[in-house]
Amino acid sequence: MTSGDAAANSGPAAPGDTAADVGLLAPVRAGTAVENATGDAAYVRALLAAETALVRAQESLGHAPAGTADTVASAAADATRFDVRSLALRARSGGNPVIPLAADLTAAVAERSEEAAAHVHRGATSQDILDTAAMLVASEALRLILADLDRAAAALALIAAEHRDTPMAGRTLTQHAVPTTFGLKAAGWRSLVLDARDRIAAVLDTLPVQLGGAAGTLAAFAAFAEPAEPVADELRATDRDTGLSLVAAYADATGLTVPPLPWHTLRTPVADLAGALAFTAGALGKLAADVLVLSRTEIGEVSESTGGGSSTMPHKANPARAVLIASAARQVPALAGILYGALAAEDERPPGAWHAEWQPLREALRTVGGAADAAAALAEGLRAHPGRMRANLGATGGLIVSERLTAVLSARMGRATARTAVTGGAARAARERIPLHEALAQDPALAGIVSPGELATLTDPSGYTGSAGLLVDRALRRHHDGGTVPE
Amino acid sequence: MTSGDAAANSGPAAPGDTAADVGLLAPVRAGTAVENATGDAAYVRALLAAETALVRAQESLGHAPAGTADTVASAAADATRFDVRSLALRARSGGNPVIPLAADLTAAVAERSEEAAAHVHRGATSQDILDTAAMLVASEALRLILADLDRAAAALALIAAEHRDTPMAGRTLTQHAVPTTFGLKAAGWRSLVLDARDRIAAVLDTLPVQLGGAAGTLAAFAAFAEPAEPVADELRATDRDTGLSLVAAYADATGLTVPPLPWHTLRTPVADLAGALAFTAGALGKLAADVLVLSRTEIGEVSESTGGGSSTMPHKANPARAVLIASAARQVPALAGILYGALAAEDERPPGAWHAEWQPLREALRTVGGAADAAAALAEGLRAHPGRMRANLGATGGLIVSERLTAVLSARMGRATARTAVTGGAARAARERIPLHEALAQDPALAGIVSPGELATLTDPSGYTGSAGLLVDRALRRHHDGGTVPE
Amino acid sequence: MTSGDAAANSGPAAPGDTAADVGLLAPVRAGTAVENATGDAAYVRALLAAETALVRAQESLGHAPAGTADTVASAAADATRFDVRSLALRARSGGNPVIPLAADLTAAVAERSEEAAAHVHRGATSQDILDTAAMLVASEALRLILADLDRAAAALALIAAEHRDTPMAGRTLTQHAVPTTFGLKAAGWRSLVLDARDRIAAVLDTLPVQLGGAAGTLAAFAAFAEPAEPVADELRATDRDTGLSLVAAYADATGLTVPPLPWHTLRTPVADLAGALAFTAGALGKLAADVLVLSRTEIGEVSESTGGGSSTMPHKANPARAVLIASAARQVPALAGILYGALAAEDERPPGAWHAEWQPLREALRTVGGAADAAAALAEGLRAHPGRMRANLGATGGLIVSERLTAVLSARMGRATARTAVTGGAARAARERIPLHEALAQDPALAGIVSPGELATLTDPSGYTGSAGLLVDRALRRHHDGGTVPE
Amino acid sequence: MTSGDAAANSGPAAPGDTAADVGLLAPVRAGTAVENATGDAAYVRALLAAETALVRAQESLGHAPAGTADTVASAAADATRFDVRSLALRARSGGNPVIPLAADLTAAVAERSEEAAAHVHRGATSQDILDTAAMLVASEALRLILADLDRAAAALALIAAEHRDTPMAGRTLTQHAVPTTFGLKAAGWRSLVLDARDRIAAVLDTLPVQLGGAAGTLAAFAAFAEPAEPVADELRATDRDTGLSLVAAYADATGLTVPPLPWHTLRTPVADLAGALAFTAGALGKLAADVLVLSRTEIGEVSESTGGGSSTMPHKANPARAVLIASAARQVPALAGILYGALAAEDERPPGAWHAEWQPLREALRTVGGAADAAAALAEGLRAHPGRMRANLGATGGLIVSERLTAVLSARMGRATARTAVTGGAARAARERIPLHEALAQDPALAGIVSPGELATLTDPSGYTGSAGLLVDRALRRHHDGGTVPE
Repeated sequence: MTSGDAAANSGPAAPGDTAADVGLLAPVRAGTAVENATGDAAYVRALLAAETALVRAQESLGHAPAGTADTVASAAADATRFDVRSLALRARSGGNPVIPLAADLTAAVAERSEEAAAHVHRGATSQDILDTAAMLVASEALRLILADLDRAAAALALIAAEHRDTPMAGRTLTQHAVPTTFGLKAAGWRSLVLDARDRIAAVLDTLPVQLGGAAGTLAAFAAFAEPAEPVADELRATDRDTGLSLVAAYADATGLTVPPLPWHTLRTPVADLAGALAFTAGALGKLAADVLVLSRTEIGEVSESTGGGSSTMPHKANPARAVLIASAARQVPALAGILYGALAAEDERPPGAWHAEWQPLREALRTVGGAADAAAALAEGLRAHPGRMRANLGATGGLIVSERLTAVLSARMGRATARTAVTGGAARAARERIPLHEALAQDPALAGIVSPGELATLTDPSGYTGSAGLLVDRALRRHHDGGTVPE
Repeated sequence: MTSGDAAANSGPAAPGDTAADVGLLAPVRAGTAVENATGDAAYVRALLAAETALVRAQESLGHAPAGTADTVASAAADATRFDVRSLALRARSGGNPVIPLAADLTAAVAERSEEAAAHVHRGATSQDILDTAAMLVASEALRLILADLDRAAAALALIAAEHRDTPMAGRTLTQHAVPTTFGLKAAGWRSLVLDARDRIAAVLDTLPVQLGGAAGTLAAFAAFAEPAEPVADELRATDRDTGLSLVAAYADATGLTVPPLPWHTLRTPVADLAGALAFTAGALGKLAADVLVLSRTEIGEVSESTGGGSSTMPHKANPARAVLIASAARQVPALAGILYGALAAEDERPPGAWHAEWQPLREALRTVGGAADAAAALAEGLRAHPGRMRANLGATGGLIVSERLTAVLSARMGRATARTAVTGGAARAARERIPLHEALAQDPALAGIVSPGELATLTDPSGYTGSAGLLVDRALRRHHDGGTVPE
Repeated sequence: MTSGDAAANSGPAAPGDTAADVGLLAPVRAGTAVENATGDAAYVRALLAAETALVRAQESLGHAPAGTADTVASAAADATRFDVRSLALRARSGGNPVIPLAADLTAAVAERSEEAAAHVHRGATSQDILDTAAMLVASEALRLILADLDRAAAALALIAAEHRDTPMAGRTLTQHAVPTTFGLKAAGWRSLVLDARDRIAAVLDTLPVQLGGAAGTLAAFAAFAEPAEPVADELRATDRDTGLSLVAAYADATGLTVPPLPWHTLRTPVADLAGALAFTAGALGKLAADVLVLSRTEIGEVSESTGGGSSTMPHKANPARAVLIASAARQVPALAGILYGALAAEDERPPGAWHAEWQPLREALRTVGGAADAAAALAEGLRAHPGRMRANLGATGGLIVSERLTAVLSARMGRATARTAVTGGAARAARERIPLHEALAQDPALAGIVSPGELATLTDPSGYTGSAGLLVDRALRRHHDGGTVPE
Repeated sequence: MTSGDAAANSGPAAPGDTAADVGLLAPVRAGTAVENATGDAAYVRALLAAETALVRAQESLGHAPAGTADTVASAAADATRFDVRSLALRARSGGNPVIPLAADLTAAVAERSEEAAAHVHRGATSQDILDTAAMLVASEALRLILADLDRAAAALALIAAEHRDTPMAGRTLTQHAVPTTFGLKAAGWRSLVLDARDRIAAVLDTLPVQLGGAAGTLAAFAAFAEPAEPVADELRATDRDTGLSLVAAYADATGLTVPPLPWHTLRTPVADLAGALAFTAGALGKLAADVLVLSRTEIGEVSESTGGGSSTMPHKANPARAVLIASAARQVPALAGILYGALAAEDERPPGAWHAEWQPLREALRTVGGAADAAAALAEGLRAHPGRMRANLGATGGLIVSERLTAVLSARMGRATARTAVTGGAARAARERIPLHEALAQDPALAGIVSPGELATLTDPSGYTGSAGLLVDRALRRHHDGGTVPE
């Protein structure tokens, strides 16, 4: 190995520079809004928002002097005090980034007010802050995903309506089966996108705040709120009220919901996110899988708008967005599996299951977000090529309608005889390179059974699309917001 | 290797005997109702029910003579005609078991009526039948799971109420943190079980029938329903109505719901099952993980009722049910991942993604079902040992309440001084093997700050359980049916 | 819901009948040899072989009277004494099937000899027997898989050799890129199959026996071998030797290897199986993925031998085996993930991680085995259609060789000018529907740069297959047994 | 929600800042050497090394003028020309980062030499460069992992030797079973670490270069190397040699191996990495799982060196490193599953499967690397507490040796009688709170059968550790380098 080339891979570098993931290996989300909303800096902002909101909630209950929260908010807003990489590095010894963050925030607040500093992170456990921050980040990411799913659904609705009756080959196990319509295919894509939208929206509505203190009893919040005077037993009931009131106030201060219980090891919110995100990745993956098939050089029935196609070959273009979406669909189910697995978390705060959630949850949010962004662009720019669809329908010389022919002829001459006639016609058509209906018209067994005109009608793929149009109509009556238009 | 021993592993045997999985490697579900409901024989019954219901639906629309469905039902009920292993073997060449099943059913019906036989499987594709059957099987399995989750939740509610104020050590990262109560822990387990119940019930309500024909257009059903006379173009609208009407009638005949579109490659129902099952496995896995920790010989705070404990050691017993539940929680997320991955299915019917669903879906249903059965028994028989809980609370010589002490003393003497006092007291308590409050009472720095009596109160773990009781009360107001009792 | 149809899904039935999985949902392995080798009955045979071999090993060290092992073997051979379903049902309370099996075996031996019965399972823990049995089963399954991989590799070698120079379109991101050869593609398939073979064979060579007793110290085997006289301390060294000697004798009696340590919670053998099986599933999945693409109606470059094609359309056939293999490739990585996850098993024997291995390991063995069987048949029967390959090469009107044209012309007229000429020629070819070389020959800019004859040569795809032939030659020199033929 | 707090989560920010992952959510690897070695900047350096090495290889074959590679290397070394975030953003449209990187490199070289610029990336496809770079990155990461595994193994060897005969409770299904030794446990940890080492080292030895051009035929490299004169058919054989020679020269220039075939869709190297990394994560996860159990407050048999324990409670410390390792073990199997799944990649370069590998492979490398770093520190600092081990051995009042007692007494008085005696003695010991051997000594049935002194010996847990010491000795003879010391 030549030293100059080898050296390029092992030179010294500042840690912060070289360790970062800035999207180089994840084009599916590089540069998207959701990527920004889920970066480490976004998490630090959310952590600071969670710390600030906690003080605000405590202040609202009279557990901190008026103005304390504003002082904390002011310190938290000073971005120069919170170095993301430094926080990451200092997180290792204690196992989570809230420990150094709370220290930095306390120090920054102390410069403004020693008294206010004493209220930073008071009574909280690291997980209270990190879980709440994760829900804030997830909330923002889900909103972005919803918007992109809406864009995709709207674009697919237009395609479904426009191509409601555009016939194309229905394909099963890679082979032509019977005709369908491009509108029905697009309506199916949209249906899955709306299913994903429903699941994302349902989770978004329920993202809870986390607050429990070290073991989820909220005891420390009451302890710190205890008066300086001796504690009598009869005061305890009130102490406990402190905890529930504080959770409500915290939810109010963050915009998140009140959970039924502290959920340090009751991970419903994270598991629900896992399910919704895996679903969405898969739903978009179906769209991508179809676009990849239909874009194949030999098929050429659709193409992406900006796939780099040449003017001379309108149906030739790299399906670049579908590729990225497909890459997302292959990753997210496994990430969701990690998150579902983390439900089985022992004790009041678990040794590993919680820590295993952080990176997969973020990765799932931004991978799905990037896929949704790509899907919206893909749907908005997708070009259909009905001519190629029509040409491909003819690839089997009429066999794509043999099901119908057999059905109709069976009713008139029995199934066995009908099958013989259709098979014989197909053989003749292939041998003589003539249309199937012409071949059949030459079969004496069919004389008097079916006319040449009816044979032409029966072998026209566009006449054998069944309920496709009505299915499209029904599917399009489903609204983005979950409602349906009355028929 | 001695030939006699070696031979035991390679002797010839009838295929059907030796290939079967009858639960030997899956004690988590062996012998449970859900195992029976999801076995191959149950699938065959469901397949036959799906075929019969389709004929019944067609008959209800006048597409088959009156009585046809009854004839089919009669043939389908003759179990001697449908050999499960034979169907499995004949499924391989075509890739699915509906092909031989439809052939066997047709033959059995033909013995009763040739005319009726012509209506068996008419217009359907294999996936119409297999997907519908899978939904019937899933429906039954989910009902069994719901019943077991209800049993578990009811038992856990009793525990939570009984132990509302039973103090125990709260544990974080494997270490004692601050006190909690066993009631709060049980309420948390129940909360997760009810979350699982909600998710299972929601999916159960929406399981759809599958009907679309070869490419999901329902075209063949109309074709077969076409009159023997020549087909005119103006009849097509009506033809298409045939499809939608048939889906409704099919849903009616099976008790399943009408899907928005044929879902051969729009796998929302399967993905939703995946999510609900992975959630449930994880939720029960949390219960099991805690029971396994608390059952440890050194901890001994709970034991399973029938774990084989001796009369001399009431807290000693193998947590056998928790072990089985834990084994389920480790498997189902990965199975769900396969199912989520299958969303990305190309074409109108996919070459592999669909086939990859069958075994993992069944395995997930029965593994979760077995875990729910075990969890119900575990919860109903769980024995708590408050004496051990109390004893373990003392394991750290009072340090488990140091958070509270520091909080209270900080308010009186400043945080730094308070920490010094608490640390010093803990050291003295450990050195002199005396209770923490006695050690602190000897500290001159605390004279006048806190009385010995208050110190005893402040170091009593049972007095530092925060809002645990109120949280239990609130959690118990949540009902099995999703509603809550007003406060 | 009509009661008759509904009832079909919920009727009473004997447990053993309806709970069984006999392959209905797994056509990929239904009826294969590996399915039989991995069924519950095969596991019971292996469990009995493990129990018998342990007695034989003990007898060989003089810890049991001569003839004891033969008596045990005789009882173990009486299949009527071991009901697989009964064992499965009785396994639930204790969490594993060895407990009831050892009881049944002891009872059967006792009928022959009470003294021999006392030696059954003596000193062993359930996991000693079950892990050893799993290795025996895996050993048999891997042998079957190896044989099928060899068949597949041999068939693919023939294809690669026959089509060493058969040109076809190389496809990237679904689009035609530059030409390749079908031989190179087949050589690649074979290369992966041989990689899989190497990994399976390496694991097969190392499958170990399991023996450790309750906590892996082998103490009980020595204790039971202790003389009836008082135990003196100086005897202990000998006692311990008993353990290691017994492991060696046990390995000898089973044909498995001696592990470095008891591996109850050191799961290297299972993890290695996971990796080899996931690899093999993926390797065969690549073959299937390509066959599925190349079988598409519009592409038609290959077809399966018995895919149900009609005589009139030789290239039309359902790729049924490829579908089954593809379904396997989607499942096994997730199963392997469960097994890798089980490495993190606490204590001397773990509460759940071990139990979670059993079903996924078996499912992985038989799913991969079924896929290997299907792949062998697929490879042996695969039909190539060079005419379609050639026709498809022309689908882009010569653009598939534009890379070469640009390369050659760049050397003569500069890259920019060359690109302009090629792009212009492609546009003209598409517009006038003439071959690319004719279009280029009309470009005055190329006059004197390149002759019409050279243009025809340069635009012939079969002349632009690079090192494909030599790569095939080199790949075919690699032998099944891991060696290579010298060039 | 108070606006100030809300704003903290949604403020505008420069994309590059906020999208980055700098380790905040991954303390397991934050700040480790392997994190730097696998960051996006490291990938860019590796991509540039791959591009440079390709030119050097071409130059070595005379396909580029002498000095070209040095010119390219010089341009590649100018870090100011390659903005990682910009490359990531520009990667999205084409789907991979090599396209913009090659453009930037070409531009940078062109400033030095237009002629040299024409040789940048000549004949290569993006995947040639990205795969080669990924192998260079993996190579560096594996070296770092190996070093940490060696450190861990060395530290564990010392522990195993020191505690060869330190008795502790063997635990099965969370319950005390029979005694074992801490040395045997440590030897088991080391055995798994060495197994991981072997698997990592085996993969490291085989990481191959990637080179094939657009469809893996190496055709373009020959085309660009073709002379300016007309191409005659007889030259082709030579042309093809160009490809194979170039692969060899490229391997030489990078230090990687020559693959049997271009592996754009033959992903053996990536799958092998997946297996070795999943194995290593699980192996370290076993160590962590045990440390977590043994660190529990109630057990306290080990503690991490710097877990923040207080001087008053030497066995109390947060097992922070074990927590991080456990979090890794929960993630990597799923990431490996994605990579195994990507084996099933269609065509010559696949639409999604390849793209889905990048992020999971990097994440697996750095997560395992971080876990190995933590494991080395954990092993080097682990403190054992033999006193607690001894105390815990007594937790069951002698029942932990009942297996031995039963074995010895059975030989003298029959199994049934022996069991009765042991059970009775245990009951008496528990009732009277006396040692088991004293209780048994009072049993008249044992008089003359066993002496009080022998009873004391037989109930001493340290005398019932079987072959533990010899197993430790044997395990320690295995060397880091795979060899073993002769006995």
